[in-house]
Amino acid sequence: MRRDEFAIEDPKEIEDFLNGMSFGFLGTVDEHGLPRVTPLNFVYVQESFYFHGSRLGEKMEHLRRTPAVSFTVADEYALIPSYFSDPEMACPATAYFKSVTAAGEAFLVDDLEEKALAMEAMMRKLQPEGGYRTIDAGDRAYASRLKGVAVIKLVPKRMSAKFKFGQNLKPDRLQDMIGRLEQRGRSRDGETAAHICKYYPGPR
Amino acid sequence: MRRDEFAIEDPKEIEDFLNGMSFGFLGTVDEHGLPRVTPLNFVYVQESFYFHGSRLGEKMEHLRRTPAVSFTVADEYALIPSYFSDPEMACPATAYFKSVTAAGEAFLVDDLEEKALAMEAMMRKLQPEGGYRTIDAGDRAYASRLKGVAVIKLVPKRMSAKFKFGQNLKPDRLQDMIGRLEQRGRSRDGETAAHICKYYPGPR
Repeated sequence: MRRDEFAIEDPKEIEDFLNGMSFGFLGTVDEHGLPRVTPLNFVYVQESFYFHGSRLGEKMEHLRRTPAVSFTVADEYALIPSYFSDPEMACPATAYFKSVTAAGEAFLVDDLEEKALAMEAMMRKLQPEGGYRTIDAGDRAYASRLKGVAVIKLVPKRMSAKFKFGQNLKPDRLQDMIGRLEQRGRSRDGETAAHICKYYPGPR
Repeated sequence: MRRDEFAIEDPKEIEDFLNGMSFGFLGTVDEHGLPRVTPLNFVYVQESFYFHGSRLGEKMEHLRRTPAVSFTVADEYALIPSYFSDPEMACPATAYFKSVTAAGEAFLVDDLEEKALAMEAMMRKLQPEGGYRTIDAGDRAYASRLKGVAVIKLVPKRMSAKFKFGQNLKPDRLQDMIGRLEQRGRSRDGETAAHICKYYPGPR
């Protein structure tokens, strides 16, 4: 990341964001050294990312050969039109967003207990209302399914977060930006305005 | 893609989806052969993807060395809980989504006219309400800005689309799934139900 003003270091902020996002994008490298980006549901638990998929897919082949991966999760809160800042030039048009990028080695989990814990954590995240029997490696009906599913674990060596919410605005522009968002009133504009206040580094 | 039932071939479907999405994920490879995934706003015009960014960023370095990239855009419509299909086992839990993946070589656009056309197309897409002076390479105020911004063009060699909306459901499960989504009534569940009808391959 080139611009430090958007960097987020607080692990709690990063974890909260990841827990609120259902899917992200896994970057792998194929046998010719070419990148591939695959959208995947994920869960982030005990400082690791877990994904699951079929044992047969192309990305499994990539991982066996080249375990280095990158995983990015991003959420766009608001498109900020140029005219919020400049009545004429298009240049200030931008977007306010959160993104987290992790990099490290990914590997297939073999241990059934760990597979069960990861899949149960995924279910609790994506189906928090319940309505299923807890996933347990000791449960015969689940054990055979757990053997059949590929669970991928990424333990990040590096992780960085960028939350862009106008931290680069001059203090006298801040209230104007917030007012314009509130006036526009798209579904996430109020939330975006609150984020501008929350993440602004200096006095307002 | 392993499962053909979710593949979409119609270029109009793919283009409509891309035109409705504001950002995607660019996969690049660094000097050590490691993947990196960067979220970027984009526009898809004349069968090419355009992105823009600073001339200084890390991904520009990656592109100069290794122009092979992958770009993926995805939108999740609905998480489908396991209990929509099975009262006990968690296994049928899934997500319905659209995704498009393109791969090819990316390069920096030098020509100011092409830069202007790409940036104007990006503005029309992301700021369709207008409120700015048209971006034109002949406009002095824009010309210097256009020189300063890096515009990346990806002409896909391969592009594939996966729209997953229950095409693998047995015909007798279809109405039940649609009914359950309509009953749940989350913000996109109605739209998801309509997509199930639209993309179902067989008689219902």
